[in-house]
This record gives sequence, structure tokens and C-alpha cells, in this order.
Amino acid sequence: MEESYELMSRERLAAEYSLQKKRYEDFKGLGLKLNISRGVPAKEQLELSQGMFDVLSASEDYVDCGTDTRSYGLADGLPSAKALFAEVLGVSPKNVIIGGNSSLNMMYDMIIRSMCFGIGGCAPWSAQGKIKWLCVVPGYDRHFAICEQMGMETVAVPMLSGGPDMDLVEELVKDPSVKGIWCVPKYSNPDGTTYSEETVRRFAALKPAAADFRIYWDNAYCIHDLYEDGDVLANIHELAEKQGNPNLVIEFMSTSKISFPGAGVACMAMGDEDAAYIKKLLAVQTIGPDKINQLRHVRFFKNGDGLKAQMRKHAEIIRPKFEAVLSAFDKEVSGLSFVKWTRPKGGYFISLWVMPGTAKRTVQLADEAGLKLTPAGSTWPGKNEPADSNIRIAPTNPCVEDISRAAELLCISMKLAALEKLLEM
Amino acid sequence: MEESYELMSRERLAAEYSLQKKRYEDFKGLGLKLNISRGVPAKEQLELSQGMFDVLSASEDYVDCGTDTRSYGLADGLPSAKALFAEVLGVSPKNVIIGGNSSLNMMYDMIIRSMCFGIGGCAPWSAQGKIKWLCVVPGYDRHFAICEQMGMETVAVPMLSGGPDMDLVEELVKDPSVKGIWCVPKYSNPDGTTYSEETVRRFAALKPAAADFRIYWDNAYCIHDLYEDGDVLANIHELAEKQGNPNLVIEFMSTSKISFPGAGVACMAMGDEDAAYIKKLLAVQTIGPDKINQLRHVRFFKNGDGLKAQMRKHAEIIRPKFEAVLSAFDKEVSGLSFVKWTRPKGGYFISLWVMPGTAKRTVQLADEAGLKLTPAGSTWPGKNEPADSNIRIAPTNPCVEDISRAAELLCISMKLAALEKLLEM
Repeated sequence: MEESYELMSRERLAAEYSLQKKRYEDFKGLGLKLNISRGVPAKEQLELSQGMFDVLSASEDYVDCGTDTRSYGLADGLPSAKALFAEVLGVSPKNVIIGGNSSLNMMYDMIIRSMCFGIGGCAPWSAQGKIKWLCVVPGYDRHFAICEQMGMETVAVPMLSGGPDMDLVEELVKDPSVKGIWCVPKYSNPDGTTYSEETVRRFAALKPAAADFRIYWDNAYCIHDLYEDGDVLANIHELAEKQGNPNLVIEFMSTSKISFPGAGVACMAMGDEDAAYIKKLLAVQTIGPDKINQLRHVRFFKNGDGLKAQMRKHAEIIRPKFEAVLSAFDKEVSGLSFVKWTRPKGGYFISLWVMPGTAKRTVQLADEAGLKLTPAGSTWPGKNEPADSNIRIAPTNPCVEDISRAAELLCISMKLAALEKLLEM
Repeated sequence: MEESYELMSRERLAAEYSLQKKRYEDFKGLGLKLNISRGVPAKEQLELSQGMFDVLSASEDYVDCGTDTRSYGLADGLPSAKALFAEVLGVSPKNVIIGGNSSLNMMYDMIIRSMCFGIGGCAPWSAQGKIKWLCVVPGYDRHFAICEQMGMETVAVPMLSGGPDMDLVEELVKDPSVKGIWCVPKYSNPDGTTYSEETVRRFAALKPAAADFRIYWDNAYCIHDLYEDGDVLANIHELAEKQGNPNLVIEFMSTSKISFPGAGVACMAMGDEDAAYIKKLLAVQTIGPDKINQLRHVRFFKNGDGLKAQMRKHAEIIRPKFEAVLSAFDKEVSGLSFVKWTRPKGGYFISLWVMPGTAKRTVQLADEAGLKLTPAGSTWPGKNEPADSNIRIAPTNPCVEDISRAAELLCISMKLAALEKLLEM
């Protein structure tokens, strides 16, 4: 365990800088091309679902629940697909709407609907003047990008150890112009935090001033455990129902990281009234999403247990990659008091906090030596983290050997960036 | 050839009524359950594309243009899919954006984009007060339903023999609140009319007052010929480009009636500026549509010739159904001067005009005897055809024998409805 940089003399810092600089230049010489910027499954993970393409063969196979999935109909999804996802989400199939392959697109459409036509019987958001959206930080850049495209004012809510700062959330929703909040409640992006039962209870009991306030519960990593003793997330729908808030939550999930990122199935779950309203709008919007792909998923995974068995296979592949990053951090930077990182039990990311004011420089140094990271700041709305400290690490795509090298290079980069700052270079 | 009803004495009308009423009751006794209400391909047509599920097998097969189609990326479509559709539409692949399985959804999204964010550098439509949309009548009910959901004012433009009344269109677009027009330029829904070259030229040369006016060119039946000597539609993109109107047209098509209605591939083609703008918005909206399904289509159809060969097989199946309807009309109602119908060389519909004021009653009579038709009025905005005369016939789904029976029952129903009116019953 090294001494932390803040305690070192200028001389020792300079020596450390030379040492790390030498290591950095050696890395540069390797001409690496590594990328841990996005949560992209590895090729081996894609192979796990290859059998899905063999489950439908004769024409009769394409008929399900009395519907030929190759033809028109069932714009809100195949009943068997609703049943599969309802089991995973702990809701009734009647509250599930199946979409295409992108849950992001379902979130976007949901916001667009609220902008153009309103939700909960209220006026369209576009007719309500400036509206605000709560963004848990650090968070998912694509969530924030939607707010920005819609011209919303984003309000940052800090992530604490058991979830978002609920005191702040409860205060902020007293403002009727606050219309929603982005939550990734299990294995959050990027922290890997799972909201505590207390947090979920407080969400379910929220009394927002706006009747058209909705919690966007992006449960992207709902069954994405890395370990057998994964985190457990309370069922927000049941809790909200008990609190007399049946339409408060809209939950989203997809199989992008269960089957195929480019050809999975997405869905959402919400209260009865919202579901009826959305189905009515959907009937005009589309002839309905690809039902053959829904049926492939149903036949291949069968039920919740089938999905969970698949996730254990994913975990076998990606757990060593998470551990390679953590092991490099433990070895290289555990002595640096200003560095911290998360140890998620699931999901797709590790969240790293480098010396404040050096995240951008760390990412730049890594990039110049052949390692692409998520741009620093991306975990904040407007891609602007005031402290310039957080970096999201997505270790799933490269092989373990490359992940180890990437993690080492990242450690060197964050050290160099810190040393440059301390040495006022 | 019978004498037309208007020339008959009341006595002869009464006799004719008894005769048709007897036939009608006989039909009723059969307990039929026929449906020619929507343009749904027959099961035999679905089988034509079954081979599509065998073109991808080993994991390497899923890689195309250097991209693993199973993973993320290429939100605006696979380059090979763009090339395939570009060939069919006669545009450059760079002007093609691939969507999910529903071209209707792409049209809807395009209108939503214009409502929320504007198009052509103009203010969002939602901020421009009441906007108007031109609807060629008779036309497609799902087009009109979008206008209605958006709260637009619809303006009916009559269909003439070579396409919409262009004198009227040219006049109407002088109004800057007119933002678009729905066109099904080839084998129009429901008339089966293909716009003449003169009509397409006049569309391409339009000088709308609104810079954000767009022609929504829904080329749903672009290669859907019933006969070898199909209609030819002029290339509106080339003509518009020559007229200095490169962003005037947004064209849509899908393989819903080429491969699978529930699992095809949709696309759109537009000018460079609109394409760049839409791609920017798309990057926030979605992770991109299902690329595996795009690749299946590319590998199965290969090129434009492959698509056209497929359409000849479709024609073999559905041509006899169209002819069964036409033959029943020729036999049963050609002597009735107030009845007319189209003889399309492609597409999915026959348009029927019964005695004014009797379309609703005709549909009701048919329904009560077991034949479901598209609700009368559906071919007009607001489902309200002032003359109550037009009925859309969609003969593709049932077998030829059932289509013959359906057509006979329809003839009896329209006769009874006319006789009831003439006899003031």
C-alpha cells in the first residue's frame, strides 16, 4: 500500500511522475486499441442466445395464442410475451406493453406522448411551459440526452449509498413543474447501486404536486446478477398500489443484455389507467412490433427461471472482467485516498472517482495511449460534472486479458493526471 | 345486363327486392364468417418468405459490412439494407433510413418530430397554431387517424383518374398552415390508382408557402403488381431535385406485404438535409432497429430483382382473388348505372362506389349475413364520407372460393340497400 499523493513531498511526487510517465510511454508503445466506453456484451455472450434462431421452424410454430405471429395484430404485444415479462417484473400481464427491440425508444415515446398529448388526464407537457426532470447523478447519459432534446430543465439528485437522496426528491416533487425522474433502481448505471427497500418505499409513497409526474423506472439490469447472492429490489408497483399511487411508476426493461443488444425485446409496465391510455394512442402509432421475435424469446427462455439460467451463463463470462478491473484498482490505486470505486454485484458498470478536476484529463491520457473510455462528464446532465471526477467503466466487451491491460493503463492515466495537477504542470 | 334500378317501376323494384331478399336470407342461413375488411396477406403468402429464417445460421453469418448485427450500432440501418431499399426506391443509399417493422410508425414518428422539434429549420408545428394536412380521398384510414390524433385540420383532396386533383393541391399549398399531404402514389389505397407522370411532375414542382411542408409519399405498394405489365410510377426524388426541391418528399415503404406483415422491415427516403437532421434526432430516440431482421431480408431477397421475383409469387396467389371480385361485379351489378368500381393492376384493394347514401347500409347488411367489410366512411378523414358511397374491398386474405361468396353477398347487399332507398323502406 503506497502512501497517498497528498502526503508526498514535491520531490517524491516528481519521482512518482517519472515512474508513471515511463510506464505510460511503454503502454503507448504497444499501440493498443481498447474500448471500455459502452456497456456492450462480448461476442461469447451473443453466442449464448444463438439457439433462439432454431426454436421456430415449421409454419405452425409461428402460431401462438391463436395468432399467426407473422401477420398483423396485437399491437401491444403477444400474450405469452407479456406473461414472460410480467413474471420477471412482478406485475400482471395486463399491465405490460411489449415494444420493439429498444427500451430506450419506449421511454422516449412515453415522454413524447406526455409532451404531445399529456398523461394522467393533464394537459400536454408542451403546453405547460418549462418543465423539469430529476436526474439521479451519476446516471445514464442517454436518459439525460432525452431530457435535453425535449428542452426540459434537468435537476441533479445525488446518489447516496441506498439510492437517490430521497429527502431531496420528496422536496423537489412539491414543484408542479417537476414531471418525472430517471431511476435505474437495480445495479444502477454507472454505480451498480441497488435501491434499498426504504428508498423504494419512499418512491412508492411520493406525493408529487403534479398529477402527471411519473417515475421512469428503467430496470435495465433487473436480473443481471454477477454473483449468486445478487441484490434484491423491492417491487415498487405493489408498494405504490398500496399507497394509492397505482399510476405513479412506468417500468422499462429489455432483453438487450439477455439475448441480443441489436435484436432483443423491450417492454414496459404501468398502472391500469396509463396502460389503457397508451394502448389507445399506440393503435394509431403503429401496426405493432415484431411478434416473431417476441415468440422466439418466449420459446427460447420459456419463463423467469429460463431467463435467470441465461443470466448465470452471462455472469460466468463477465464476472472475471469486473474482477480484473477491481483487482487492478486494489493493486494500483488503493493507497490513493482520493480514488474510490464501486464493487457492484451486478449490472454492466463500475463507477470510478478520480482526483477531483482530473477525470477529463485521465480520459484524455488513456485515449492517447489507446484506451477509449466513456467521456468524462457523461454521467451528469449536459455531460457536465462540476467536480470532474467520475468515470464510468464498462468492462464487458473486451477479453479478460485486454480488460486487465485497460485497467492498468487507466490506473496509470489517473495517477498521471493527479500528479500533473499536484505538480501544477 | 339488367336494366338499372332508377329506370324500373315501383312494381318491378318490389319484385327485384323480393328476389334479392330471398337470396340474402339464403346466404344468412349459411352462417358465413368472411372478412375482407383489411389488407391482410393470406397464409400462403406468408409461406413464401419462410426460407428467410434459414439464411442465417453460423455466428459468422450475422456479421455484415463489418458489423455484428446481433450487437449495438447503426441506428439508421445496416448499409446493405439501405442499398437494397435504395435500389427499389431509386435513391442513393445515403438518403435511406431503415426503421423497425412498421412504416406507419416511421410516418408517425416523422410527424411527431415535426410537431415537437420542427423540420426544415422551421419552428415546431406544435408552436405554429392550427396546422392543416391534405388528405387525398378516398384514402387510407390509418393516415387520417394520425392527423386526427395530432389535432390537425384535414382538408380533403379528391382523387381523379391520374392522381389527386393537382389544381386544388397547388392552390391549397399557398396556405402556410398547410404542412403536408398523404399520398399513396402507386396502386393507391383504396382506388388502386397510380399517379400519372404529369401528376408526379406537378408534385415535384410544388412551391408550398410553408418551408416545412412535406409530401408524405407512402409507397406501400411500390412493387406490388398483380400483372406483368404493372403500372410505372415516375421517380419523384429525381424530379424534385431538378426543381430545386430536394427536401420536399419523404418516401416510405416496408416489406409488410413482401415478407411478413408482423415482422418485416420498414424504411424511408428523403433529401440530404432532412436525412442529416433526422439521424441526429434518432441518435437520442433509440439504440436502433433490429439489424438481424434487416440482414435476413438482405440475404433472402439479395436485390431488387429478388424482391420483384417474390412479388410475382404473391401475384399468383392474390390475382385470382381480385378477379373473383371483379367477375362477380361484372356478372351481378354491371347493369346498375349507379355502381362503379376500380380494376387495379396491383396493390391490395378494390374501391367500390355504391348508390350514394347506401354505403353504410350495404356494409351493415353484409355484416349481418356474416361478411365483414371496412366500415363505410373509413376512406375519408373523420370516417365521414359525405356521399356515403365508397366501400374498400380487401380481397387478399380469404381463399378464392370464399372471396367469390363474399363478392356475391356484397352484390346482394348493395342491391338491397339501393332497393330499400328507392322503395323508401
